[in-house]
Amino acid sequence: MSAPVTVPRLDDDYTSAAARRRLAFLARETGASPEHIGRFSFDPAVLEGNIENFIGVAQVPIGIAGPLLVDGEHAHGTFYVPLATTEGALVASYNRGMKLLYAAGGVRTTVVAEAMQRAPAFGFDSAREARAFGDWLTVNFADIKAEAEASTHVGRLHDIEQFPASRFLFLRFNYTTGDAAGQNLTSKATLRACAWIRAQYPGIRDFYLEANLATDKKSSQVNVLRTRGKRVVAEATIPAGLAREILHATPGRMFRARQVSNLGGQLAGVNNNGNHSANAVAALFAATGQDIANVAESSAALVHTELLADGSYYYSVTIPALIVATCGGGTGLPTQRECLELLGCYGSGRVRKLAEIVAATVLAGELSLGAAVVADEWVAAHDRLGRNRP
Amino acid sequence: MSAPVTVPRLDDDYTSAAARRRLAFLARETGASPEHIGRFSFDPAVLEGNIENFIGVAQVPIGIAGPLLVDGEHAHGTFYVPLATTEGALVASYNRGMKLLYAAGGVRTTVVAEAMQRAPAFGFDSAREARAFGDWLTVNFADIKAEAEASTHVGRLHDIEQFPASRFLFLRFNYTTGDAAGQNLTSKATLRACAWIRAQYPGIRDFYLEANLATDKKSSQVNVLRTRGKRVVAEATIPAGLAREILHATPGRMFRARQVSNLGGQLAGVNNNGNHSANAVAALFAATGQDIANVAESSAALVHTELLADGSYYYSVTIPALIVATCGGGTGLPTQRECLELLGCYGSGRVRKLAEIVAATVLAGELSLGAAVVADEWVAAHDRLGRNRP
Amino acid sequence: MSAPVTVPRLDDDYTSAAARRRLAFLARETGASPEHIGRFSFDPAVLEGNIENFIGVAQVPIGIAGPLLVDGEHAHGTFYVPLATTEGALVASYNRGMKLLYAAGGVRTTVVAEAMQRAPAFGFDSAREARAFGDWLTVNFADIKAEAEASTHVGRLHDIEQFPASRFLFLRFNYTTGDAAGQNLTSKATLRACAWIRAQYPGIRDFYLEANLATDKKSSQVNVLRTRGKRVVAEATIPAGLAREILHATPGRMFRARQVSNLGGQLAGVNNNGNHSANAVAALFAATGQDIANVAESSAALVHTELLADGSYYYSVTIPALIVATCGGGTGLPTQRECLELLGCYGSGRVRKLAEIVAATVLAGELSLGAAVVADEWVAAHDRLGRNRP
Amino acid sequence: MSAPVTVPRLDDDYTSAAARRRLAFLARETGASPEHIGRFSFDPAVLEGNIENFIGVAQVPIGIAGPLLVDGEHAHGTFYVPLATTEGALVASYNRGMKLLYAAGGVRTTVVAEAMQRAPAFGFDSAREARAFGDWLTVNFADIKAEAEASTHVGRLHDIEQFPASRFLFLRFNYTTGDAAGQNLTSKATLRACAWIRAQYPGIRDFYLEANLATDKKSSQVNVLRTRGKRVVAEATIPAGLAREILHATPGRMFRARQVSNLGGQLAGVNNNGNHSANAVAALFAATGQDIANVAESSAALVHTELLADGSYYYSVTIPALIVATCGGGTGLPTQRECLELLGCYGSGRVRKLAEIVAATVLAGELSLGAAVVADEWVAAHDRLGRNRP
Repeated sequence: MSAPVTVPRLDDDYTSAAARRRLAFLARETGASPEHIGRFSFDPAVLEGNIENFIGVAQVPIGIAGPLLVDGEHAHGTFYVPLATTEGALVASYNRGMKLLYAAGGVRTTVVAEAMQRAPAFGFDSAREARAFGDWLTVNFADIKAEAEASTHVGRLHDIEQFPASRFLFLRFNYTTGDAAGQNLTSKATLRACAWIRAQYPGIRDFYLEANLATDKKSSQVNVLRTRGKRVVAEATIPAGLAREILHATPGRMFRARQVSNLGGQLAGVNNNGNHSANAVAALFAATGQDIANVAESSAALVHTELLADGSYYYSVTIPALIVATCGGGTGLPTQRECLELLGCYGSGRVRKLAEIVAATVLAGELSLGAAVVADEWVAAHDRLGRNRP
Repeated sequence: MSAPVTVPRLDDDYTSAAARRRLAFLARETGASPEHIGRFSFDPAVLEGNIENFIGVAQVPIGIAGPLLVDGEHAHGTFYVPLATTEGALVASYNRGMKLLYAAGGVRTTVVAEAMQRAPAFGFDSAREARAFGDWLTVNFADIKAEAEASTHVGRLHDIEQFPASRFLFLRFNYTTGDAAGQNLTSKATLRACAWIRAQYPGIRDFYLEANLATDKKSSQVNVLRTRGKRVVAEATIPAGLAREILHATPGRMFRARQVSNLGGQLAGVNNNGNHSANAVAALFAATGQDIANVAESSAALVHTELLADGSYYYSVTIPALIVATCGGGTGLPTQRECLELLGCYGSGRVRKLAEIVAATVLAGELSLGAAVVADEWVAAHDRLGRNRP
Repeated sequence: MSAPVTVPRLDDDYTSAAARRRLAFLARETGASPEHIGRFSFDPAVLEGNIENFIGVAQVPIGIAGPLLVDGEHAHGTFYVPLATTEGALVASYNRGMKLLYAAGGVRTTVVAEAMQRAPAFGFDSAREARAFGDWLTVNFADIKAEAEASTHVGRLHDIEQFPASRFLFLRFNYTTGDAAGQNLTSKATLRACAWIRAQYPGIRDFYLEANLATDKKSSQVNVLRTRGKRVVAEATIPAGLAREILHATPGRMFRARQVSNLGGQLAGVNNNGNHSANAVAALFAATGQDIANVAESSAALVHTELLADGSYYYSVTIPALIVATCGGGTGLPTQRECLELLGCYGSGRVRKLAEIVAATVLAGELSLGAAVVADEWVAAHDRLGRNRP
Repeated sequence: MSAPVTVPRLDDDYTSAAARRRLAFLARETGASPEHIGRFSFDPAVLEGNIENFIGVAQVPIGIAGPLLVDGEHAHGTFYVPLATTEGALVASYNRGMKLLYAAGGVRTTVVAEAMQRAPAFGFDSAREARAFGDWLTVNFADIKAEAEASTHVGRLHDIEQFPASRFLFLRFNYTTGDAAGQNLTSKATLRACAWIRAQYPGIRDFYLEANLATDKKSSQVNVLRTRGKRVVAEATIPAGLAREILHATPGRMFRARQVSNLGGQLAGVNNNGNHSANAVAALFAATGQDIANVAESSAALVHTELLADGSYYYSVTIPALIVATCGGGTGLPTQRECLELLGCYGSGRVRKLAEIVAATVLAGELSLGAAVVADEWVAAHDRLGRNRP
């Protein structure tokens, strides 16, 4: 086999020249002639730490939905929500939900828990030694916490959960991470804490910094139960008249459809008994520089609704593992930062506000699609607004 | 409550003028002054059917990894893979995995199944009538198929799976959908088929076009079992020497870590026993105009590895629900189309090729991160290449 | 280590003498002096094929609940249900539910599907060969079916489901098995069919007769979706007045509690959103000679309820994997057979009747406990009737 | 509808006369003539608190497997294990596994965690009030604990886990319960604690003593993660020579089959990646007076094995939710107590010993069946020892 023809790199690699050089290389190697990828509006120097082998940008269209009326603890008032997507009808559907929610008095949002974790595993001669190690961890938590936090300014180690299995002890180091999403921060802090632990504690046979119990970028029951990132609840009560007028559906029919969806979801073994929260999550993540791979876990949702005595419809959605940041990652890139600024969410002290806006947006979409399915408008909307080319 | 201040729309809404008008509106309402969002390189007229209330684009940086050597049925030879992401170290990590796979002779890829579905539910007086309806469906499948396919040029109804529960019959209409992802196509075809069914069959009390058994944009066991989109397997065998040289890890240690991850994943109730397939999936989806909300289900993965007698390492990843398209949706937008063209995947007859490339890319990342965890290089790599600001 | 002191066996081992010999051995080895275990009412000769190293019997008390009014396709009229249990209050609770159901006009029961399976796995060089093998299986189904059925009088191979993963093809051979539970029958038939397949088809690297996809004696999503044993639905509609009178709870309150239980169950990742179907299943299994280890999968249940316009309460329970038999296994043993005879369920042609009675009994318990939780009577009932020794 | 013909009760209901009266009633109503059910060896007076409407007993045959060599913290030495079952070949298979384990030096057993729970749910006006309630619970834990423990001599409230969702706070009150299984004890203690909480804390809209997060008698992920009853690990290392000699299988082949089973189990969404732990659990539960409905959750298992450098086979099984008791429930009934006495496990201070013996027995069966599948002996054994009547 001949040697691989590798992608060219320059000494000064975060430049337009380097990007052009690589695009030219690709044109030569693939026969394609990309014209748009290389057209971006900023100095690539800002990308260091976000990408390697940079060639240009994907231009993902952004639509605006709103006003979204939020009654949160961190997000107050109306917001215009930038959604980056290529799915026709999506922005229109969220917009319709927001119109309904505005008329209904807005969405109440609450961040009920938060925790970002790294989940190392330690192996021993037998389960008995693993259990003894767990007891030692409990006793020495303060020292471990100090060690972990020595590597970070904003991370705080809240607790270490223990999950024994076989001759291993699996741990979840649960942190709060300020306005960062915190995956790297928690990796680094946990690695440091574990180095200290390994120096102190004899008899550790195996150590893995991660062994599938943080389940980063995956959907899991442990995160539905125990939170990853932010756990946010969005709630609203929709008067029957508004549902009929704006959604062309009655609360009674929507509630009944919900029951059948719950049953279907139980059959399916689904991580989300709602309608399509991933749409809002993905579109907001792409717009605001979140890590879109986290859609995997942030797409989990628990929907609970109630048909109230006066005929109105209480609707709530709980997102148990919403991974968001207002600093770090891609949040500071030019268009991404601007989208955050549109929401008043750029920079420190804003992450819960962003979490609340995401959850409120999700709720708007749940109501709109939930009604469309009942009112037989779903396919028609996609025909009118989307690229149906059956 | 005062009337909502709605986002302005123009008669000719897919224009730069309309986008600027909305950006100005947003600047006024939010106090922000976005400069980059409005800078895109194409005529917004192309966006009709992909977005509403367009204001501009998110510029998501693209890095190139490769060459990726693929021994597929549809993808042959080397590919340079565009990954749109803001996570530092990600492209570098995939690149390392691809280097290893090149040296090891490449990745064997196979699309082992495909099915896109819409999953309606029908309700009856009791379970007995629901069962009788199921029998009727079986007998009348040919007519139902004809009716469904009358609404589509490319969709083919393969079968209808039945899942009885309570007094409902849940169905999965399984289609092949050509080079489209096919969610809208299957909705429309199933809606038409169900209209015909409802006209023919008396005694249907309830009908929902969807009731959480297709689990679009969600992770579910039913799709792990029964496929959604493409079910793709990527396989490679890594000689021990290469693993040591390029990954700084031995197959033995990597295999052992895999076992512990399997155990951890079983505890967690995770939809993916591997390392981080969502990273490749999300980055390729964003680059090539796929619907990034589908990361929710396309992030599921089954990893199976074997330590072979000669010390080499067989590694396979099965993606049971990979939702990809090479036409329709966002695939025709300027930068997205160019990314597909870089892979030779734009247009009809290419969707399995794209699926194979995605799976091969996933495999590269599994090996690279799997080794990094074992070789204690993971955190160091993020420190060197990422935005760790602890 | 000294040689193990093994349990004595006699040439004629299924005799009272052999049992006494072993009891004497145990008394000597353990110091215990069992008096009751050895007191059984039948000739141990009947036990051949059911037990080895027989020493006597566990006497499990049986209580009678009823009359249970069933409107099934196989079970018609009233039944008195023998429940073998040691949990105080259990029989009383089921009895209360049956009283309610009698007054409400009875339980409608339907066996909506049935399938018993063995699930072999075949391994190949790569996924591609596994897929080709799957195609071959489809083409050769008639021959495989003939081969499988040649080993059995009552088993019928209905279909073979394929689940590809990695370089393996996992199969579910789905059978109907007459009045037997059928695990052994399907093992034998599938083993024979697979021997034929292996002789015909070249290139099979690995073969396992079972690889965790039949999930015998385990709870799994695949069986919730695809049925194992019988899939049975029990339904009833309870007028509000009867609920209040007999259960001291209103449908409205019971329905509301159901919603909260559904939400809790989604958090928990539970295989059963109902109350306690395992109690009825286990007690009937123990009484009637079913394999009580099958409680593992037969305890799965899907509960769906509706609050009807007239205030009455529609309640349904779907048991997706009920493993029952009216011949074979323990069904012919003296007390077990008598319990089946009390239900008119002993012998051939009765297995669906038994399945219906089990499901109807489950429904009685769901209603009774569901109401007790709401009416705050649950703990009080256990205090009055059970062995609460806090 | 005519009035139901109810089962007769006597003033002195726990007598042989009452049982005979009911049997006569059943004979009259059903036409059956049971002769064996009514033949039991004890005074029915002992059954008060265990059964209602007593008519007699199910005689479930018991076989003895052993000697089982256990190296536990509570169980030391050899045990002869009574297994109540009607499945032929089962005792023989466990016996074979025990023979192997004896030769291999025995089973190491460890109870790594224990917790019995009741899981109430509290509802509020919105998620925000639910979160505030959670904070209040944390602050007032000492008082709540005192209140809960006031209702019990042996129960100790260890902690209260919080799981927020929608406008509810779901709780798990985790107790240790001495030698009782503890479901009733924890119900009563939690009910008392909750009565105190409801008197103290204003604004509680809904209260349910249970809402599907304890998942009693069901299989759930929460209990796999967080333990219900005892969490026990059994471990052994099998030299290759012994495996070949006694099991007719090599560790290498058994390990490989294990890998394929893990993959199959991941596809299936199973609660147990092992072979058949429910068989041991059910047979021991029936023999020793445990609540056999708890097989539902006690059948969950995590199997982790390792192929060691010297060719021997490390095998471990973790049972995360083993519900056992050595007092209360059915443990004091005549035959059940005798079975406990055979194991030296009757009465107080023995429950961990029993848990260890159950886990060690499970391990014996895992090895034996795991080898039989590999050695193609499985079906043959059932043919020889079971009631195969295909």
